[in-house]
This record gives sequence, structure tokens and C-alpha cells, in this order.
Amino acid sequence: MAVYTDVSDEELQRFLAGYDIGTLLAYKGIAEGVENSNFLLHTTNGFFILTLYEKRVAAGDLPFFLNLIEHLAARGLTCPQPIRSRAGEALGRLVNRPAAIFTFLDGMWIRRPNVKHCGAVGDALAKLHLAGADFGMTRRNALSVDGWRSLFDTAQGRADTLQKGLSQAIGSELALLEREWPRDLPQGIIHADLFPDNVFFLGDRLSGLIDFYFACTDALAYDVAICLNAWCFESDHSYNITKGRALLKAYMRSRGLTEREIAVLPILCRGAAMRFLLTRLVDWLEVPPGALVRPKDPLEYYRKLRFHQAGVSARDYGID
Amino acid sequence: MAVYTDVSDEELQRFLAGYDIGTLLAYKGIAEGVENSNFLLHTTNGFFILTLYEKRVAAGDLPFFLNLIEHLAARGLTCPQPIRSRAGEALGRLVNRPAAIFTFLDGMWIRRPNVKHCGAVGDALAKLHLAGADFGMTRRNALSVDGWRSLFDTAQGRADTLQKGLSQAIGSELALLEREWPRDLPQGIIHADLFPDNVFFLGDRLSGLIDFYFACTDALAYDVAICLNAWCFESDHSYNITKGRALLKAYMRSRGLTEREIAVLPILCRGAAMRFLLTRLVDWLEVPPGALVRPKDPLEYYRKLRFHQAGVSARDYGID
Repeated sequence: MAVYTDVSDEELQRFLAGYDIGTLLAYKGIAEGVENSNFLLHTTNGFFILTLYEKRVAAGDLPFFLNLIEHLAARGLTCPQPIRSRAGEALGRLVNRPAAIFTFLDGMWIRRPNVKHCGAVGDALAKLHLAGADFGMTRRNALSVDGWRSLFDTAQGRADTLQKGLSQAIGSELALLEREWPRDLPQGIIHADLFPDNVFFLGDRLSGLIDFYFACTDALAYDVAICLNAWCFESDHSYNITKGRALLKAYMRSRGLTEREIAVLPILCRGAAMRFLLTRLVDWLEVPPGALVRPKDPLEYYRKLRFHQAGVSARDYGID
Repeated sequence: MAVYTDVSDEELQRFLAGYDIGTLLAYKGIAEGVENSNFLLHTTNGFFILTLYEKRVAAGDLPFFLNLIEHLAARGLTCPQPIRSRAGEALGRLVNRPAAIFTFLDGMWIRRPNVKHCGAVGDALAKLHLAGADFGMTRRNALSVDGWRSLFDTAQGRADTLQKGLSQAIGSELALLEREWPRDLPQGIIHADLFPDNVFFLGDRLSGLIDFYFACTDALAYDVAICLNAWCFESDHSYNITKGRALLKAYMRSRGLTEREIAVLPILCRGAAMRFLLTRLVDWLEVPPGALVRPKDPLEYYRKLRFHQAGVSARDYGID
């Protein structure tokens, strides 16, 4: 959560003159997203979100992300939509950064998801996968199996400062994943980061998805594995099969999993746990001691990985 | 700028049930204020600001602040107003902290104030002083001359890490201020922190004042001195007398300064510069190295202090 870049009233008003969204009445930096700077705008036409893309998001990828969310919305998915400028552009420039304005999406992310929320996420994920099927652009997943080793190289030497033996445990798991990672699964557009804070609800009703900045082309079932990791563990790191069953069942109502996808679900879950373990580990080790921003706990994902390693089958995730 | 405390959707909805402001549709942490956690709320009734008071604000002072802004609003000043609960309370409790909900105030703070903005601030400051005259509560200014020495004691040993000789320069100035500080000036409610980021504008029109959490009972002219420091210096630390004249003239149209107030304006300006130099210095020295939050530059106020020390008279600030 951070606002990295300040915007002056003059700069912002000049930028907004290129859009047909009314006169600026107020704006405030909001604590949403860690990859970019976000502002709430109030204009005479209503409320909007302004995003300034900081260097963690590659500028060359922005057309992929913006076109994707327009494509998904055209197929009935609810997600914040870029407002096009008078010149027809979704992407502009502000404070020397790529910038875009989005519609304001109501809803709240759920700190403690229940079984119904998990079902709603499974349903939305399948619909996202179906809606992405005819999207014309592709983007490689830099954070899939081929990207993990370089993350591990960065963290390897200091991983044991978190927990003794962690480095060796990751090393042998990584070797296994690189050897056995399934590369023959149905591919498509995946969200790749559909954690609770990226899914908005109004009561039990899912009101929309946000933050598509990790979206890419990869195995659809890997996205399911990410969601099982993100939604179906309790705070004591135990897997809640009732939640898993609700998520998977709802997903499969819209998009059935193939036999092969079901068979490799455990290894996909191990991979998903590895991906978040590694990125959190690198973030953790990069933050200077005493810093006011506390990175997320890498060991949460190590504990999830341990669950997946314990000889589980697709049944243990809730596939009947 | 910081959100210190997260609030879950469940806790917030439970809290809002005590208010008559509709159903919660969305909320987002906003980067406003450094003393507390602020959230923008969207409900079926509109937009509001929720403030959680962190430990830097003494809970015992909150009734003073909340009653004051209600008092000022009743006398025509525009500032965000606390929404009273169904039980009639302005102050509630959320996530184990004092909490209040405020009306949403449109307007933006001006990064580079011009002469017109300075005039508008002078006008608003005088009106605040007049409107506060019949407010029934008082609050001692802990950050006036009697509070500076203990701040200096905290920083003294390390002040020279910022600039050689700083510790000695502050020490001798402090001794002079303690000796010569005027204690016979007209007293009343002062804002005590009316910096540009606490004054909202829509174009050249001042739309309201925010952040009364330093408000207290002190010399009214000291508040003028704080504003001259905060609004009338250029980014190269030179004093802009045209801005000073605009601020003072607009102030004196509503509330004339006494001869005595005018005579001591230079020492009040020195004191105001000292106050912000010292608090910034303590903040600067307290932040751990490598932290992601950059405190404000104390030396900015040392340079302002040097201007005030250079034998200036009230004329040099723009009083004709």
C-alpha cells in the first residue's frame, strides 16, 4: 500500500483537460495496489480512479492490460474500465509516467472470506477464462516456473535468516517443479494474482475484479491453483476443503477441468505456493531493517507448500 | 501520509450501523494526515471520510477538536463536519481506537500558492480567529515556547549530523526566544498548523480548512506568524513580500492587529520557524535509516529562521 508519486493540482487539471469527465473538485492519494500510485478523483461528473504506473509495471505491457480489461468488460465481466481521452486514448502521461483514468468500482475486499465468497471467486475465475478465450493479445508469464530460479538465486544466500533449512527446502522443491511442471495444459488469459484484495464484494455478491497487472497467458488451471492457495487456507495455515470444494465446483460449472488438469492440480498448487513464497522472500530480504512498510510473510506460503507436498491428490482439494 | 490501521469490512459495517448514513458500498485508505488513519467511505448516501485516531493524538483532546470544528462551522467557516451517530455522539470507537466520520470536503491543496491564495488564507485565518472568540473550551499549546526546550534536548546531540553548527545556533536562538517571548498578546483559538496542505481551494476560491489537530489556545498573532512562514517563502527560501502583504492585508481587513502585535511580529515569526525546525528535526532523527517514509526537511525552517533573525521589522513582512 503506497502512494509513490505526488501530483500537483495544476498538472492534474492540465491532464484532465484532455478528457471529457468534467471539472476537478477534489483528489486524494489512496492506499491501493503496491505497483503504482493511485488517486481518487472527484469531478463534476462523479468519482474516478487515476493510476500512475511506476517502474515496477513495464510500460510496454500497459496496452495488453488496458485492452484486456476492456475486452473482458465487453464480455460481461465487471472490472474498472479505462476512460478514453478526447483523442480516444486509454493511456496518457502525467508526472512523466504512463497514466490512466478508470471508472470507480463499488465493493469491498473481504478480509475473512467464507465458503460463499470462495464459490463466487471460482465462478468469476471461470468466466474470466472463458471471456479471455478470444482476446487477441498474449503476454508471457515471467513469474511462472521459468522465472523462479532467478528469484531463488537472489534470495538463496539469506533465506535461512527467516527459517533454518528454508534455502535447501526451496532448492529441492524447485528442482522437482522444474522437472515435473506440466507444459501440455489448456492455455489462455489468466489473472495470476486473484487474491482476496483484488476481488470486490457487496455482501455475498461479487461486484468486480481489479488489478490485472499480473495477467498473462498461461495454463488456466494454474490460475485455479493460485486461487486455492489464496482463498482456501485458514489463518492457522490449514486447508479448508469446504472452501476448496465451493471454489472448484463453481469454477467447473462454467468451465470443466480436463482429466489432465485435475491430475496435475497438486503440482500446480505447489508451483503457485512456490511463486508467492519466492516473490515474498525477495521482497522481504530487500526491505531495509527498520523500514515502516512491512512486507508480507513469506513463511505463510512455505507452510502452504508443505501442505501441497504431503502427498495430496485432487480429491484433497475438494474435487469429488 | 500514511494508513496505519486496516479496518475489515465486517468491523466497518458494524460501526456504521450506529450511524444514519446509508449502506456501505466501498471504502479505501487515503493518504491524508500523518497523525491518524483516514478512509474514504462510499455509502448509499454519498461520500464521507472516516478517521481513526492513532496514538499521536491524545484521546482526551478529541472532544476539544470535534466541538471546535462544529463551533466554527456554525459561525460560517467551512471545514469537514463530524457526523453524529444515532446516539448523538461525534466520537465512536473502531479497531480499538477513537473514530469519527466526517463530511467530504471538495477542494484541493495548492502545491505552489500564488498571491491570491495567500490573501485567501489571511482572510480565512482572521475569520477563524473571530469565530473562535466565543468557543467555550481551551487547550494549552504544548508546542509553544515552553515546549521547545524539551524538543531541543531530544535533538541537540545529533543536530550537527544535519549541518555543522546547527545545535549551537538553535541553542542560542532558543535562549533568546525564552527570554523575549511576548506573553501579553491577545489570546484565542488558533489553528497552529495552517500549512498549504490544510487549506483547500477550488480555483482561487478557498473552499475550506482541514486538520484542526494542533488547534489550541494561544496568541492569535502567533498563528499569523505560522502562516507567513508556511505560505510566503519561495522554494529558494526567499521571503516574498508581495505574498506576505496580501496575507496580512486580508487578515487585517477582518481582524486588525494591535500595535503590540505588529511590533513583535518578527519574534513571533522566529518562534514559529523554531517550532517547525524543532519538530521536523526530532522527526528526522527518529526515522530509521533506509525507511521508506522521508520526513520533511528541517533545514528549510532553519533557512527561514535566518531570514527572520536578520534584523527585520514588521514592514519587511509586508505591513505598510
